[in-house]
Amino acid sequence: MSMSASPAPRLDRVYGAIADPTRRTILRILAGGEVNVGTLAGRFPMSFNGVSKHIKVLEHAGLLRRRVEGREHWLRLEPAPLRDASRWLEHYREFWETRLDSLEEFLTESNRVPGRPRRRRGRGGR
Amino acid sequence: MSMSASPAPRLDRVYGAIADPTRRTILRILAGGEVNVGTLAGRFPMSFNGVSKHIKVLEHAGLLRRRVEGREHWLRLEPAPLRDASRWLEHYREFWETRLDSLEEFLTESNRVPGRPRRRRGRGGR
Repeated sequence: MSMSASPAPRLDRVYGAIADPTRRTILRILAGGEVNVGTLAGRFPMSFNGVSKHIKVLEHAGLLRRRVEGREHWLRLEPAPLRDASRWLEHYREFWETRLDSLEEFLTESNRVPGRPRRRRGRGGR
Repeated sequence: MSMSASPAPRLDRVYGAIADPTRRTILRILAGGEVNVGTLAGRFPMSFNGVSKHIKVLEHAGLLRRRVEGREHWLRLEPAPLRDASRWLEHYREFWETRLDSLEEFLTESNRVPGRPRRRRGRGGR
């Protein structure tokens, strides 16, 4: 895992963007296809400006593309930044998998030797 | 993709936590094993209090466990919330994969028929 700084600002923006439930819902709606801004805004119990701010955050994170057709703005999902966000998390997959194995092991041990205290888990090896 | 609200606050906290490069670096350090707070703080060019605040954000997101031994606080990675964060992103995998396929298709088409305008991509298909 290199510590290169270049992808950090983009990851900051992407994780920051999807840290909000309204913005995650907007992405979910856009996953169904291109939507115009008015229709999208109508689906949320907040002002048009409120939704518009969320859209700008997603746009700034590169998560959507805007297409202007006359007075209408159409939005569609731009999934590439989600791929990057997913890749960063993948570095940790071995940890959550090991951890679950380790819990399973503990539960099995507990059944065998009741009351046996849980050992501290060391890193490395299984 | 259900719209159940229950996992949202946790996802908010987890994505919010990893939206910061210092906090991502802390997780990377903890991936190497348990570390005490003083040692960890010494690795960042900021005040102890600054690092301590980042640690609290990670703790609140469930991303680390603290073990107190006398006056020393030891931290270790708690990877389960990263697994949840990864799973939410997985819903979008088909989109970034389709999008790359679609780009490849476009480039191939462009080579075959120079100047042919790019068609708007519909949803559905593949």
